[in-house]
Amino acid sequence: MTEGTFSRRRLLGTATATGVAGLAAGATSGALGHAAASEGGPALSTLGSATVPFHGTHQPGITTPLQSRSHLLAFDLAEDAGRRGAAALLRRWSTLAAELMAGRLDETGTGIADDAGPASLTLTFGFGHSFFDATGLTALRPEALRPLPAFSQDALDEGRSHGDLWVQIGADDPLVAFGALRAVRRAAEGSARTRWQMNGFHRSPGATARPMTGRNLMGQVDGTNNPTPDDPDFERHVFVPSDGEPAWMAGGSYAVVRRIRMLLDDWEGATEEERARVLGRRRSDGAPLTGGDERTPVDLEATETDGSPVIAANAHVRVTAPESNGGATMLRRSFSYHDGEREDGSQDAGLLFVCWQADPLRSFVTVQRKLDRGDALSAFLRHEASGLFAVPGGAAEGEYVGQRLVES
Amino acid sequence: MTEGTFSRRRLLGTATATGVAGLAAGATSGALGHAAASEGGPALSTLGSATVPFHGTHQPGITTPLQSRSHLLAFDLAEDAGRRGAAALLRRWSTLAAELMAGRLDETGTGIADDAGPASLTLTFGFGHSFFDATGLTALRPEALRPLPAFSQDALDEGRSHGDLWVQIGADDPLVAFGALRAVRRAAEGSARTRWQMNGFHRSPGATARPMTGRNLMGQVDGTNNPTPDDPDFERHVFVPSDGEPAWMAGGSYAVVRRIRMLLDDWEGATEEERARVLGRRRSDGAPLTGGDERTPVDLEATETDGSPVIAANAHVRVTAPESNGGATMLRRSFSYHDGEREDGSQDAGLLFVCWQADPLRSFVTVQRKLDRGDALSAFLRHEASGLFAVPGGAAEGEYVGQRLVES
Repeated sequence: MTEGTFSRRRLLGTATATGVAGLAAGATSGALGHAAASEGGPALSTLGSATVPFHGTHQPGITTPLQSRSHLLAFDLAEDAGRRGAAALLRRWSTLAAELMAGRLDETGTGIADDAGPASLTLTFGFGHSFFDATGLTALRPEALRPLPAFSQDALDEGRSHGDLWVQIGADDPLVAFGALRAVRRAAEGSARTRWQMNGFHRSPGATARPMTGRNLMGQVDGTNNPTPDDPDFERHVFVPSDGEPAWMAGGSYAVVRRIRMLLDDWEGATEEERARVLGRRRSDGAPLTGGDERTPVDLEATETDGSPVIAANAHVRVTAPESNGGATMLRRSFSYHDGEREDGSQDAGLLFVCWQADPLRSFVTVQRKLDRGDALSAFLRHEASGLFAVPGGAAEGEYVGQRLVES
Repeated sequence: MTEGTFSRRRLLGTATATGVAGLAAGATSGALGHAAASEGGPALSTLGSATVPFHGTHQPGITTPLQSRSHLLAFDLAEDAGRRGAAALLRRWSTLAAELMAGRLDETGTGIADDAGPASLTLTFGFGHSFFDATGLTALRPEALRPLPAFSQDALDEGRSHGDLWVQIGADDPLVAFGALRAVRRAAEGSARTRWQMNGFHRSPGATARPMTGRNLMGQVDGTNNPTPDDPDFERHVFVPSDGEPAWMAGGSYAVVRRIRMLLDDWEGATEEERARVLGRRRSDGAPLTGGDERTPVDLEATETDGSPVIAANAHVRVTAPESNGGATMLRRSFSYHDGEREDGSQDAGLLFVCWQADPLRSFVTVQRKLDRGDALSAFLRHEASGLFAVPGGAAEGEYVGQRLVES
C-alpha cells in the first residue's frame, strides 16, 4: 500500500492499523516532526511530535486526518466589539494557533501540555450568519450562508446552535486539546463570549488492527463513501475556488455542524438483521448487503429471488447515495460525543456531525432533505443543535485568518 | 532502562515517551497480544491488542498502568434484588469482564469495538457501605468501610456520591471503553440502577516525548511520590493481606473516589511563582523548589538566606509528604474530567481522584485531614462527590468477583 493510499484512507476517517496514515498525511504536507519508521508502522513515541501546518491555501482541520480528541465551540461578539474588535480577535487567535500548532505550547499559559508535542493539533475558524450584521459586513455575507431549512426531525436547541464565530480544535492528546481550548477562550475575553461548547472524540490512533473506516457509537462503519483528495472533483466539491464568490472565501469551505443524539437503547434493542436492513450494510465490516467488502460499490438494483430489493427503499446507504442526490458530495469529518447520562437514564451520546463543502445547499441540504423524506436510520437519531459556518481559506505567512474579510 | 523500571514508572501514572511502559507491564503479566518492537518503542499498531488479565490475586485496574479513557459508575441494587440478585449480577459482570478484557468484544452486543483489540481494557468492581444492609450482609461489612469524616472544604453532591456497587472501566480506546460501559449497564438491568456515572481521561499513550509522571489539568505533575511495586511495603500499603480481615477481602483494596473540581480561572490567573509556592514544586517539570529534578527528594528543612523555609508551611508537597502524615501511603490512580461549561461560564473540569490503600483511615483520611487544616492548593479545589468502596481480591478461574462475600 502506498503512502498516497494510506493518506486517502485516513482522510476518510480511517483508524488504521498503525496510524501511518495520519503521519503520512502530515509528512506529505511537510509537517511531520519525527520520521515514521519500523515494520509495524510508526512508534507510539511519534504521536506527540506530529505537527500540522497552520499557514496554507486551506485552513487545517478539514483534510487533516481525524484526531482522537476535539472541542467545537461558538462565540458571540461583545456588543461593542464591532469590526475592529473582531479583526483584533482573529489576529490574536491566528497568532495563537500558529504557535500552538508548531508545538510552542507555552503560549497556552496553562502549562498543561508542556511536555507533549502538539499531537497533530489543529485550530479552524469560521463565521456564522450573525457575524456579518454584528460587524457591519452584511454586504459581504455569502449567499451560501443563508440559514438551513427546517427539517421535520429537528429538535434544535438554539442556545447550542449557530453563533457569530466558530472554532474547531482537534488533537491526538486530550491535554493538548484542552490547553488549546483554554487559550482560545482566554484570547476571546472582552471581545466575545462563548455561546456553546462541545467535546468530541474519535478512536485512538493504533487501536484498530486493520485499516478500515472509523465507527460511530452505533457501531456503524461511518464515512466509507467520503470523497478523497485523489478524486478529480475533490477540490471543487469541498473548497471555494480561487476565483469564487465572495472573493474573501477563496480557498474556503462551508462547515455544517449538527449535534445528532443517538437513541442507543432502541438501536441496540434491534436485531443485527434489522440494523443491517436500516443501514443497507453489514454492521460488522461495513460491506453492502449486495456483497463484497467495505469498499465494494453497493448494487442498488439488486433484487432478492422474490423480486424485492436487497437494499431497502429507505436503507441509509440508498438514501444517501450520490446517485440518489444528483451527485451531491460533501466531506464528512465527524466526532463522537458522550456527555454522561440524561435524566431519563439514557446516555447523552451520539455524533458531532461536521461536513465540509463548497456549496451547502447543493450538498448537505440536498442529502438532508432526502433523509428527511424517508431514511430508516433517522428513527434512531435526534438532531439537537445546528450550525452553518463560512470557513475562509488558510492564512498566508504574515496574514491572519479572515483578514481578507474584515479588512476588505 | 529495564522493563521493570518502565513498568514502575508507568504505574506512577507516567506518560512515557513510547508507551513501552504500559505494554511492558502487560507483557510482564503475560498479557501482551502482540510483541512490542522497533527502535522507537512499540508501534502504534500494538495499542489495541494489549490485554490485561482478569483473573488473579488482585483485581485489574489497580496496578494496571493508567489508560487514556475511563468511566466510573455506581449502582444501587433494586429493592427486590437481595443477596441472591447481587450474586447473580456479580456473576454476570465477572463473565462479561473476562470476555471483554480478553478481546472477545462481541459480548458487548454493541458492535462498536469489533475491530479494535481490548486496548488494555480493565473492569474493577467494589462494594459501598450500603451494599451490606441491602443484601443482609451487614455483619460482614468491613470496619474500614465506615463513612469518611466530613472535611471543611467538602461541597458534596449526595446523588453523585456513594452507591451500593462501584465499577471502574479503563481502556486505551474510547470506543472500547464506551462499549464496556454499555455492556455493564445492560447486564445490570433489572438488578440495579445507575446511581452516578463519570467520564475520565488521561494523556494519550505516546503523546509525551520524555518519560515523566502525568499531569493533571492544572498542569501539575501529579503522582511523583506514588508508591511502586518495587517498594518493600507496597503490598502491605495497598492490599489487604491474605490473612487479613475480613477474610473475604483478602487480596482486596479500598478505593476512595473524589470528584475534585479545579478552579482553573483562579489557578491560571496566578503567576508561575505563586503556583510554584502553592505546590512546593516547579510546575514545568515537577522538580521540588529545593532543587534537582522530579525524582529528587524534597528538602523540607531547607531555608532561604532570610531563614524562611524554601518549601512554604502550607505548600502541597509539604502537607502531603509521608513524613508529615506518619508514613501514610496510598496509590493514587486518578483521571482528569471535563464535562463542558458550567452555568457561570467556567469549565466543569478537574480530577476524578481515585486512591487505593489497605486502610483508608490510616491513608486517605490522615492525609485529607492534614490538607483540610492548611494546604495552599485546596483554595483552588472543590470536592464535589465522594465514595469509599471495598474492592475485593481478584477472582480465580471459575470464580466471580465478590463470590467469597456473597456466598459466605
